[in-house]
Amino acid sequence: MAVSNKQVIFKNYVSGLPKESDMEVIESSIQLKVPEGTKDAILLKNLYLSCDPYMRGRMTNLETLYMPSFEPGLPLSGFGVAKVLDSTHPDYEKGDFVWGITGWEEYSLITAPDHFFKIQHMDVPLTYYTGLLGMPGMTAYAGFYEVCSPKKGEYVYVSAASGAVGQLVGQFAKLLGCYVVGSAGSNKKVELLKNKFGFDAAFNYKEEPDLNAALKRYFPEGIDIYFENVGGKMLDSVLLNMRNHGRIAACGMISQYNLDHPEGVHNLVPVVFKRVRIEGFLVNDFFHLYPKFLEMVIPHIKEGKITYVEDIAEGLEGAPAALVGLFTGRNVGKQLVVVSRD
Amino acid sequence: MAVSNKQVIFKNYVSGLPKESDMEVIESSIQLKVPEGTKDAILLKNLYLSCDPYMRGRMTNLETLYMPSFEPGLPLSGFGVAKVLDSTHPDYEKGDFVWGITGWEEYSLITAPDHFFKIQHMDVPLTYYTGLLGMPGMTAYAGFYEVCSPKKGEYVYVSAASGAVGQLVGQFAKLLGCYVVGSAGSNKKVELLKNKFGFDAAFNYKEEPDLNAALKRYFPEGIDIYFENVGGKMLDSVLLNMRNHGRIAACGMISQYNLDHPEGVHNLVPVVFKRVRIEGFLVNDFFHLYPKFLEMVIPHIKEGKITYVEDIAEGLEGAPAALVGLFTGRNVGKQLVVVSRD
Repeated sequence: MAVSNKQVIFKNYVSGLPKESDMEVIESSIQLKVPEGTKDAILLKNLYLSCDPYMRGRMTNLETLYMPSFEPGLPLSGFGVAKVLDSTHPDYEKGDFVWGITGWEEYSLITAPDHFFKIQHMDVPLTYYTGLLGMPGMTAYAGFYEVCSPKKGEYVYVSAASGAVGQLVGQFAKLLGCYVVGSAGSNKKVELLKNKFGFDAAFNYKEEPDLNAALKRYFPEGIDIYFENVGGKMLDSVLLNMRNHGRIAACGMISQYNLDHPEGVHNLVPVVFKRVRIEGFLVNDFFHLYPKFLEMVIPHIKEGKITYVEDIAEGLEGAPAALVGLFTGRNVGKQLVVVSRD
Repeated sequence: MAVSNKQVIFKNYVSGLPKESDMEVIESSIQLKVPEGTKDAILLKNLYLSCDPYMRGRMTNLETLYMPSFEPGLPLSGFGVAKVLDSTHPDYEKGDFVWGITGWEEYSLITAPDHFFKIQHMDVPLTYYTGLLGMPGMTAYAGFYEVCSPKKGEYVYVSAASGAVGQLVGQFAKLLGCYVVGSAGSNKKVELLKNKFGFDAAFNYKEEPDLNAALKRYFPEGIDIYFENVGGKMLDSVLLNMRNHGRIAACGMISQYNLDHPEGVHNLVPVVFKRVRIEGFLVNDFFHLYPKFLEMVIPHIKEGKITYVEDIAEGLEGAPAALVGLFTGRNVGKQLVVVSRD
């Protein structure tokens, strides 16, 4: 009854930029049934895995993180979409589609599946539950609507704006009637921001020797809301351009994750006299809003008012490169890995 | 009818640490009446002047500030307590005592006195209206109760804790049932914090080679609320010690005001995963709460539950040294200058 189970193994703790060789794809085996006597468990066939920047933190051996580190010798884990093959949990049954934290492998036995969401809307691409309708979508929704306190007409800046979260923040801000500028790391991404996601303007930060000057050009009146995905020098320049009572939703700081010594941010004094609020947040605190989010976003998807770009890697063999690529900006749009399409 | 009017003149814009020689005491003259035909003006006899760290900002020629720069050749201005000698404004009459932004001189003609508060409670020391019952008191009140969202039992850290604002924040936090630790720059100040203001613990930051280690010692469980008066290295160490959902009320960053290039703050990534809120504020946005503040604080003063330490310089001649002393930590408690006692 055992079948082969390909897995992406985390080899050892990482410092600096993660490399493909920090992971290893191996063949293991698994029974496609919840073991006899194991209560409240589900056996999943993983379909789509999500590559997310926060996973970099789990590659270090730090006790202070909000999630446990990966364990060397075991498969990575992360958000994914899966099909239930067997269940001893009353909330799930064979044939259900779910999304939640699963293993980077073909099949996973999950013994505490309480944080899985059952997928109700099957008339959208299932891959969306790794992005637009999954954790990154909820992150954009909670970060923008709950943390930024946005108002119509405000000036909104999004960094890493073509990424899994940023592309949605920009679209939400446009729906609300804000003026939205995004930055990204290639001209192809900048084109997407302007022509696909409807940002009012966009720029390639790699072509701007002076970020402060670039922001002054795009925001002559200053920035009301900064959706922070990047940190470091970008944050430092934004701080010089915030308006009075501006808000910074700190969603992530990807530019800092691979540095042993994070960069210094120098321009914090204006936070006082401009009354700026910088607020870190984690989507985990907002998942109770998921039904409300779906209610808002699904009609927008169906009416074509919200769109989403995915960067799809085929097969678990491609998963290490897909994950590593997040940190060099190789991905265009939401990076995910197809394990199986059904 | 003209009388002599001693004034503290601002000589020129300052870079680095301000010096006494950046100011000059001169004798001018003034009529002790509002000039004929000048409506809505008051003529003040200044009694007590407040020395405040924010004044450093006004000594530079920066357009981005929230208050105008001082004008070279004219007297400095700042918060003070004064007696109305003459008035053509319907809200003020001769004999009133007021506090608000006045000149650093014996007598001031104020042509737009709308932001002066009339002093109603005369049964407390009048000097308190430069500190405990004036701008610094309102700053402590608004910053702690409105910005920090404090709860009983939380761990509160105050830097520059024996200063005009800090000493009150600590006492407010104790009244609410928080655990409060303060830091200051001398052992004498540390004694005050522990023995006069009732802080649970206090330390001399100049004797701590490793601020992060010091904070870990005083807050083994971490910090819920940091009342930020200092910035720079102190903020950087605090960021490593914040608890989940911690709050930082950024009231000021005195360690940075005299630097041409502000220090880098490196530990901002934990702001994200600990969901920390850093919020700058200015007391100007909260003066509508002043009556509520007085209602709360006056009974506490009378019952001896709130105390206040002042550092009093005698005479306008001592004003430049008193102001400069704020930036070297020479003052013990709220620094003010007596111009006249009646």
